Amino acid sequence: MAHATQSPDAYDALLDHYETITGLGGAAGILSWDQEVMMPEGGTPARSTQKSAVSTVRHDLLTDQQVADWLDDLADADLTDEQAAVVREIRREHERAARVPSDLIADLSEKTSEAHPKWKQAREEDDFSIFAPVLEDLIDLKREYANHIDPDADAYEVLFADYEPYLDLDTAERVLERLRDELVPLIADIRDSDVTLADPFAGSQFDVDTQEDLARDVLDTLGYDWEHGRIDTAPHPFSSGTPFDARVTTRFDPEKPVDALLSTIHEFGHARYTLGLPRAEYGTPLGESRDLTVHESQSRLWENHIGRSPAFWEAFLPEMKTQFPQVEDATPQAAFEAANEIFEDNLIRVEADELTYHMHIVVRFEIERELIEGDLDVADVPEAWNDKYEEYLGVRPETDAEGCLQDIHWSQGSIGYFPTYSLGSVLAAQIFAALEADIGPVDERVREGDFDVVGDWLESNVHQHGARYTTPDLVREATGEAFTADYFLDHVHEKYGELYDL
Amino acid sequence: MAHATQSPDAYDALLDHYETITGLGGAAGILSWDQEVMMPEGGTPARSTQKSAVSTVRHDLLTDQQVADWLDDLADADLTDEQAAVVREIRREHERAARVPSDLIADLSEKTSEAHPKWKQAREEDDFSIFAPVLEDLIDLKREYANHIDPDADAYEVLFADYEPYLDLDTAERVLERLRDELVPLIADIRDSDVTLADPFAGSQFDVDTQEDLARDVLDTLGYDWEHGRIDTAPHPFSSGTPFDARVTTRFDPEKPVDALLSTIHEFGHARYTLGLPRAEYGTPLGESRDLTVHESQSRLWENHIGRSPAFWEAFLPEMKTQFPQVEDATPQAAFEAANEIFEDNLIRVEADELTYHMHIVVRFEIERELIEGDLDVADVPEAWNDKYEEYLGVRPETDAEGCLQDIHWSQGSIGYFPTYSLGSVLAAQIFAALEADIGPVDERVREGDFDVVGDWLESNVHQHGARYTTPDLVREATGEAFTADYFLDHVHEKYGELYDL
Repeated sequence: MAHATQSPDAYDALLDHYETITGLGGAAGILSWDQEVMMPEGGTPARSTQKSAVSTVRHDLLTDQQVADWLDDLADADLTDEQAAVVREIRREHERAARVPSDLIADLSEKTSEAHPKWKQAREEDDFSIFAPVLEDLIDLKREYANHIDPDADAYEVLFADYEPYLDLDTAERVLERLRDELVPLIADIRDSDVTLADPFAGSQFDVDTQEDLARDVLDTLGYDWEHGRIDTAPHPFSSGTPFDARVTTRFDPEKPVDALLSTIHEFGHARYTLGLPRAEYGTPLGESRDLTVHESQSRLWENHIGRSPAFWEAFLPEMKTQFPQVEDATPQAAFEAANEIFEDNLIRVEADELTYHMHIVVRFEIERELIEGDLDVADVPEAWNDKYEEYLGVRPETDAEGCLQDIHWSQGSIGYFPTYSLGSVLAAQIFAALEADIGPVDERVREGDFDVVGDWLESNVHQHGARYTTPDLVREATGEAFTADYFLDHVHEKYGELYDL
Repeated sequence: MAHATQSPDAYDALLDHYETITGLGGAAGILSWDQEVMMPEGGTPARSTQKSAVSTVRHDLLTDQQVADWLDDLADADLTDEQAAVVREIRREHERAARVPSDLIADLSEKTSEAHPKWKQAREEDDFSIFAPVLEDLIDLKREYANHIDPDADAYEVLFADYEPYLDLDTAERVLERLRDELVPLIADIRDSDVTLADPFAGSQFDVDTQEDLARDVLDTLGYDWEHGRIDTAPHPFSSGTPFDARVTTRFDPEKPVDALLSTIHEFGHARYTLGLPRAEYGTPLGESRDLTVHESQSRLWENHIGRSPAFWEAFLPEMKTQFPQVEDATPQAAFEAANEIFEDNLIRVEADELTYHMHIVVRFEIERELIEGDLDVADVPEAWNDKYEEYLGVRPETDAEGCLQDIHWSQGSIGYFPTYSLGSVLAAQIFAALEADIGPVDERVREGDFDVVGDWLESNVHQHGARYTTPDLVREATGEAFTADYFLDHVHEKYGELYDL
């Protein structure tokens, strides 16, 4: 372990420069939040100019020759562990950005601008062929992009590393295969089961304004820090911000109050992570979250291991009844069952449950990987997609709109992103097990309304590390073990085995 | 008139570069709007980093050596009038920014950060001496700043040009002296008058949520384009944005529904100007508003010449009565009188009326000018301030808090800003007279609920020109005359002479 007593000049200069980069990233975050939540529809042209200006200058600062020079100076410098982590993160970001020619960045940006309306039109007209040509171009460009970053590596692996830099693709693949192999039969068993779960929320209407009050109540209950956050509605819920200001969004359906609650709890998990990052390190990688896998582990932990637990419904249902008298006869067990129903015939990822969700991910992972590797033609995507749904979920989409056109990600050039959704869920179970091993059963605390114990443990064991450790090291630091799907699979086998009498 | 058929390469490169500068300016605007309207309180540290990052990179782009080179290339180029206007505006902005050393910018920024809490504390404790030392430093720095921009010019004139670059300070001074000389006796006459204006709103409470509905109604009535705007509440109402997204804010007092309406109408005037700028020119100076004088002329025209007119109250009072039955017996004449009461004993600028307002401006103008010129010591500001209030308004502040500490501007380093408030009101009257000379009496249209005729005329004759013309040329283009206070003085003598039986 190195113990530098003073930081080298190049280190200070680099940190100073990186603080501006962080500030620009945060500015871009506010521009996007505002666009989704507040901006009047006609504001798009100016907003595009603003976002493009901020991202261009951020890219220029990141790839600046000065950064390369400082990093060179620091290559053999005597650095503390923390300083070395800072340099590792900035070096990685700098090198990836610097290897991609500006022209290609511009081409990609132009192509995604073109792709979005094509995807929208294709989905509206339920005709994949409208989207196919631009998707083909995008895949070529993404392949080229990956090739610039690392000509010797598997292109999909390079793309995946944009979202999850430190868990290698083999690990991801092994986990996804295991999920497929174990969940496909579990889902089939559930389909064959005679059990029907209770749903005390079915058949009633739930006023949307009251649902919004309830969303605030649940955030209060979980310990959301309103001094550093807010909640709003957005068509596609998300969370974004900084350790000083981490906001959540949610959405409401008058027939599905449980969905809105679980979505709010999910976004709370993201925001709680951001708020738990060390504020004093804001502006450096030590104050930044680890990547998408770890972020998703935090949202899924709160959603699945708290929000979908029997204890949560014991604690929170009484509050819900004061707002919605139409469920005053519901028992906590019935509410718990409603929050855990497996939707056997669902085709849509964002409406999926804790189990079938992963099959949506596996399908897209397998398909996008074959596309990048050139083993699948874009024209053949719909059939491949539908075949896989039939095989893994026992249900075949009848249209492209409810099939391969359902998600926006490809039109945005996001390829390699999806696996992190499943990896995050898997990691959530592992971290939750470590938490319980440390502090005892969480159910008892939750029944008493003590949620802080969970947030505080996560803050100490995950959040406070920022991006100091790589993902595998962070997993080991927080759980004492290497990344594994064991806990997740145990969790779902036990829970759904019991619920569906398997 | 030059007629270039093709734009020089340097021109295209400059425009491209300037579009990024515009985008960054817009991003800074959203960061500020969000901070005033949406941001949770704890977000300040990250927001400061974000704003400082955006303004630093914007300043770097503006002062870039490339910009100087392109401007050199274009010095003798064959340009169209519009191109020449673009180059004139960018050159002016570049030269002023480039002349000020970065160290001084940093010193000013640091000193204003220090000044704000000192000013706040001084106001809270009603003790000017807490603020005095930092104000003294700020004045020294602003003098130094002016000296870098133009060592041969009067320092106050240089500072004034930050806010109003094209109306020279002599003009401003002449106008302010004339306002003082004519309004002081007019206000004295009103004080001596036996007339008491009606106030049908006094003594009732007006629900704040209903006031917000009414603010939306008045914006609908005036023709606000919701596709490109929104309204929110903010402690200090303002308007900001782009031609694609120009937002207004307002505030509500349960006892003062007319104040909230007039404030909303005022901010509508600013937003209407921004929305009337040519969208196709966004990203160039041709798509930008002329400076603070012209901006304020637009807000004051709507506030004073529409919102404070008898016809407006004939048109809008019925709507107000449906929302507030407590004023169902009010006549339009009574409401009009309430909107035009002169507050003889008011000491606070932001609560002032159409006449006494300008005395607040004159006092601060005279004092800040003497401060910059070294003719007044900071320590003597409170006494000088109170003496002037007594002389011009017949009322003496008893505390510094309600005297020279009332406004935030000095603590932000804004010196030379205030005169534009009065110049804008004066110009509003001149433009309104030109409008009526062109399309006939506006009262008749307003009574019929036709406000678009006003917005459309302003758009064609003022807004559409962006920053193509300098302020004096724009005034001449829109009104056929040089800038003059005649119309304003005629307007107030006539209106208040009639209201107060003078």
